[in-house]
Amino acid sequence: MSAGGPITVAESRAFVETFELEPTGAGPLDGLRFAVKDLIDIAGHETGCGNPSWRDTHPAATVNAVCVEQLLGAGGRCVGKTVTDELGLSLIGENHFYGTPLNPKAPDRVPGGSSSGSASAVACGLADFALGTDTGGSVRVPASNCGIWGLRPSHGLISVAGANSFAPTFDTVGILARSADVLARAASVLLAYEGLLGEAPRRVHLIREAFAIADPEVQKALEAPLQHFRGLFGERVCETSLMEISGEPEEMGLQAWYESYNVLQWAEIESSIGAWIAATKPTLGPTVAKSLALVKNLDRRQVTRAVQRRETYCRRLRTFLGPTDLLCLPTVPALPPLTDSKIHRVRLGSAYYPRALSLTSVAGLGRLPQVSLPLAEHAGVPVGVSLLAAYGRDAFLLGVAQRVAASMEG
Amino acid sequence: MSAGGPITVAESRAFVETFELEPTGAGPLDGLRFAVKDLIDIAGHETGCGNPSWRDTHPAATVNAVCVEQLLGAGGRCVGKTVTDELGLSLIGENHFYGTPLNPKAPDRVPGGSSSGSASAVACGLADFALGTDTGGSVRVPASNCGIWGLRPSHGLISVAGANSFAPTFDTVGILARSADVLARAASVLLAYEGLLGEAPRRVHLIREAFAIADPEVQKALEAPLQHFRGLFGERVCETSLMEISGEPEEMGLQAWYESYNVLQWAEIESSIGAWIAATKPTLGPTVAKSLALVKNLDRRQVTRAVQRRETYCRRLRTFLGPTDLLCLPTVPALPPLTDSKIHRVRLGSAYYPRALSLTSVAGLGRLPQVSLPLAEHAGVPVGVSLLAAYGRDAFLLGVAQRVAASMEG
Repeated sequence: MSAGGPITVAESRAFVETFELEPTGAGPLDGLRFAVKDLIDIAGHETGCGNPSWRDTHPAATVNAVCVEQLLGAGGRCVGKTVTDELGLSLIGENHFYGTPLNPKAPDRVPGGSSSGSASAVACGLADFALGTDTGGSVRVPASNCGIWGLRPSHGLISVAGANSFAPTFDTVGILARSADVLARAASVLLAYEGLLGEAPRRVHLIREAFAIADPEVQKALEAPLQHFRGLFGERVCETSLMEISGEPEEMGLQAWYESYNVLQWAEIESSIGAWIAATKPTLGPTVAKSLALVKNLDRRQVTRAVQRRETYCRRLRTFLGPTDLLCLPTVPALPPLTDSKIHRVRLGSAYYPRALSLTSVAGLGRLPQVSLPLAEHAGVPVGVSLLAAYGRDAFLLGVAQRVAASMEG
Repeated sequence: MSAGGPITVAESRAFVETFELEPTGAGPLDGLRFAVKDLIDIAGHETGCGNPSWRDTHPAATVNAVCVEQLLGAGGRCVGKTVTDELGLSLIGENHFYGTPLNPKAPDRVPGGSSSGSASAVACGLADFALGTDTGGSVRVPASNCGIWGLRPSHGLISVAGANSFAPTFDTVGILARSADVLARAASVLLAYEGLLGEAPRRVHLIREAFAIADPEVQKALEAPLQHFRGLFGERVCETSLMEISGEPEEMGLQAWYESYNVLQWAEIESSIGAWIAATKPTLGPTVAKSLALVKNLDRRQVTRAVQRRETYCRRLRTFLGPTDLLCLPTVPALPPLTDSKIHRVRLGSAYYPRALSLTSVAGLGRLPQVSLPLAEHAGVPVGVSLLAAYGRDAFLLGVAQRVAASMEG
C-alpha cells in the first residue's frame, strides 16, 4: 500500500474494470459512488461471473441490470465492475483467474466472497457502496470479513433481472456499504421505501446454537456488541434456541438447516448452469471444479423432502417472528481464513464451510432479510454480527441497524 | 375430433413431444398424469421455449427442473412437453412455429397463452394437471379460456430453477388442473404444505373497476358465480374500489397498474434475453418481433419510478388484505378471441391486451397468489373468475377454492 495515502484501484485488486457511468436522475444517492459485482450487467460490457469461459461464451449485455438502472436514476454514479468468486460459488474470495481482492483491515486474510471485490472496493474507500449478490452468504460474509455494512434483502424484493441467477429461490441482489446511513439510502432506492419506520424490536433473539458453534475468538469479540444491544434494547434481548423456532429435536439443530440448504442450492445450480457446463466444457478453477462435481452428483430425489423442510422452516419463522422480532447471529462463526491457505483444504477439509453456511442458511431458507453490522474485531480482524427480521420487513430492519449505528457514535 | 371418442394427442395439438417419465417416489400424486410446458426443463430434452432459434442455440437440459423433480417424487407421472407461446410472450395461444393447441370447449377460439398446450392437454383429458409458467397471466388466462382450474402461486415460493426466466420478479411456475382437488394436490407438493386450513375468508372484495372493464357477456356470465359466492360467504362478499387499496385517485385505476407492470416486465425481459437476441439474431414470429421491439425501445429511466409504484402497491395490498381477505376479479375481461384472427391486430389494435393485463397485473405486481375458477360460460365458451389472497396465503386460497368447488357439486 502507498505509505499512508489512500488505497489505489490497483492496490485494492477489487476491480475487473473501472469506468464512470453518470447518474440518470437525482435522488437520495446524489454524490455517492457505487461499484457493481461482475455478475450483474452493465450495458455494453461482458458480464464475466469470475470465469473467463463464461465471459467468452456469453454476449455482452445490451442494457444495465434493473438494479443498476434504479441506482443511476436515484443519483448514484457507477465507478466500475468488481471481482467475484468464480460463478459466485464460494464464500472465500480467492479467484483462480482474477486473484484475491484486498481486505484492507486484515491484509493477510481473505476478503470473503463471492462479492469479494465489492466488499474490497468499499472497505478500501474506492466506492461508497457496492452491489453484490447473495445466494448463500455472498454479501454477508465479505461484509463481515472486511468490516463494513452488508444487506441481504428479503428474497424476491429487489429485481435480479440482469444479475446472473444460479439458484433462483436463494439468489438476491444485496448491498455493501461504508456506513449504516449509506446502506439505508441505497436500500431505500432498491426496495422503494420512504423514510424510517423507527419501530423498536419486540424481541432480539440471540440464537444459542449459532453462538455456540462460533470459534472462541469470535464469541469473545461479539461480547461487546451484545452488551451494547442489551444496553440499547434492555430486556427485549433474550436467548432463544433454534428448536423453539423449528420445532425439531435439539440434536437436529443447524445441521438440518445446512443440509436442506445444500440439497436445494445444488439442485438449483445444476438446473441453472449444468447444461452450459456439459455443452461448453469450461475451464474451471480447482475449487469450483470440486464444488460442481458435488452439484452434479446430487441425488435429486432428495429435493421433495428438502423443499418440505424448507417451507416448514419458512412458515415457523413467519409465525415466530411476527412483524417486529429480530434474530441475532454471528455473521460468520470464524475469522476470515489466511490468504493462499490452500482453498480446497479450507473448503472441504475443515469445518469452516459447513459452519459458515449453517449460519447463512437461516436467512436463505427463510427468505429473510439480514444485515451484517461491523461492530466487533479480534486483534484488528473484523467480526460482524447479524440481525435478521421477518420476510418483507427490510425497512424496519434497516431502521434498527441505523439506530444501533447512531448509538455507537453517541 | 374423433366422433364422440376421447381427444387424441394429435387432435389436441397440445404437445411438442410425448413420453413417459415414471414417478421416483409415492405420495399425493399417485396415479396422476402431468404434462410440462416446453419452457421447463426435462432431462435429456431440449427446452424450446416455443421458438426454434432458442431451441437450437441452447444445449439440452442435463436434469429435470426442480418442480418436475418434486412432482415425480410425490407419485406423479410425466406424459410429455406442451406447446408454449413463443418465448412465453403472449396471452393468446397461437404460436407461429408450433401452431395453436385445441381449446376443446370452444374449438373456434384460442386456448390462451402462453401455457397454451398445458391448458389444452388438461382440458382435452390428456393429463390430470400440467405445469405452466405465469409471468403476466400465462397460467390464468388459458385456464379461464379452456374452462379448467389454474393457480399462479405467490411469487418466489415454487422454485423456477430449470424454468426459463424472462422477467424474474414476475415469473412463477403455476399449475393447470382438471379439478380443484387435483389442483390442491399438486400445489400441496410444490408449495410443501399439508392438509387444508379450512379457514373462511374475512371478506371477499369484488373489485369494482375490474368488473367494470369486462365485456357485457363476461359480466353477465359471472353473475351466477358471484351469486353463488354470496350464498356461500353471505355478507362477507362486498364491493370494493381499487382506490381504497392503492390510495390513488380514482382516475388512475387499473391503468396505472397496467403501465407499471409493462415498464417493469419490459425492462426485465430485455435484461433477460436482450443480449441473446442481439447476438444470435433469432428467427421470430411476427407478433413476438413486434413485442420485442417495444421491449427494446423502453426508456429505462422509467424503471425507478415504476419500482416505487409497484412496491407501494405491494405494501398497501399487504395491509389491506391481512391474512384472510380475498380479492375477486374476472380472470380475463373478454371471451377468448377467435383463432387465426390476425394476432397482431388483436394484440396491438384492440383493447384486449391492455385490459387483460390490467387484471392480471394485480397479482403480478402484488406478488399474490391467484386461482382461476372455471365457474361460468357464455354460450358454451368458458369464462373464469379469480380469487386472490395475500402473499404466502396460497394454502388458504386453495382451501377456499376447494370449498367453492365442493359447494357447486352439492
